[in-house]
Amino acid sequence: MASIPDVSAFMTAAQPTETKGFIMQQTMVRVKDPIKSLDFYTRVLGMRLLVAKDFPEWRFSVYFVSPRHDPLPESAEARWQHCMTTPGCIELTWNHGSEEQPGRVYNTGNADATGSRDGEPVKGGFGHIGITCPDVYAACERFKALGVEFTKSPNAGGMKGLAFIKDPDGYLVEILPHAYDRATGAMPTQPVDCNGVALDGGEGYKDNSK
Amino acid sequence: MASIPDVSAFMTAAQPTETKGFIMQQTMVRVKDPIKSLDFYTRVLGMRLLVAKDFPEWRFSVYFVSPRHDPLPESAEARWQHCMTTPGCIELTWNHGSEEQPGRVYNTGNADATGSRDGEPVKGGFGHIGITCPDVYAACERFKALGVEFTKSPNAGGMKGLAFIKDPDGYLVEILPHAYDRATGAMPTQPVDCNGVALDGGEGYKDNSK
Repeated sequence: MASIPDVSAFMTAAQPTETKGFIMQQTMVRVKDPIKSLDFYTRVLGMRLLVAKDFPEWRFSVYFVSPRHDPLPESAEARWQHCMTTPGCIELTWNHGSEEQPGRVYNTGNADATGSRDGEPVKGGFGHIGITCPDVYAACERFKALGVEFTKSPNAGGMKGLAFIKDPDGYLVEILPHAYDRATGAMPTQPVDCNGVALDGGEGYKDNSK
Repeated sequence: MASIPDVSAFMTAAQPTETKGFIMQQTMVRVKDPIKSLDFYTRVLGMRLLVAKDFPEWRFSVYFVSPRHDPLPESAEARWQHCMTTPGCIELTWNHGSEEQPGRVYNTGNADATGSRDGEPVKGGFGHIGITCPDVYAACERFKALGVEFTKSPNAGGMKGLAFIKDPDGYLVEILPHAYDRATGAMPTQPVDCNGVALDGGEGYKDNSK
């Protein structure tokens, strides 16, 4: 590919009939300690546990969380269907016993050495999950007050108005606005962010994409 | 944790007010060749490209795909907002030039050696994305006809009624039903699947969770 390709055809192609009803329902990540992760995804990110399922014979459990907060159906079957038809759930997988291992357990995907045998960084494919919200700066003030770890506050780095925080396993969570600022046609910004970084400060571009 | 913990409190906790409006909008994975990936996610999985954004100064591009097929807004700003308020998009990130590298480029998260410096498997955190659909067996017959690679057809392994396929970079995509079979309270099954595997065949449990 000598240059950036024209991809407009992928915006206009008709949906294949056989794929009607397909839902992008889950992103699965392994977590060391389910209580720490569930606390983070529910209390900090405002999600709810929709379904928990244990497989003691295979020594793992899975937990589906989502920002969805409408009433959960009564029966286990209906609750499963409710979850399986909710787009964008996160499936937290806990391998029993991992919570007793020292340090981080799983490679996060971002040039991280965790989980490699030689202690060298791995060129990972997974980057992050991303949460959009009405006000990135207010969300980040709250994350900061809750003791959340940042890798980029909204005014740091080259992209102003978005942030990256870490979940308990070190997975990156991007925090983005729902919409651009109408006046500027860019992400809304504020003069100073939760870390005291000014809009014209905060170093250069911090690359999370490579 | 001596035993499987009680997590029911995470199902009933009230949503923190400050997190209202939070949307689990994206899962980002890096892809080697955007045209191959966009073809797979649109033609095979039935998604649509909602937004493409190039960052030539930083030598990468991002592509947001989703099963959503209602009309796209006209303006770039409105289209961005449409995308940023759509739960469960996949953000495909292309680092310019990766398409010219030989072989696989990124570690997939599943005990894969790609991207490690010593060629040894890495204990990865990311597992898969998962698509739910009305009929897993019909979806898999179609995937098979389209030449998609399976790591588990619906009747293979210990969990009957779900499948795993691979995207062009080797990322796992789980294919699951929207709902349980009312009669059995388990995932719907058929006697023989797209790979000719009978319901009582297909080896034992194939572990994708560790």
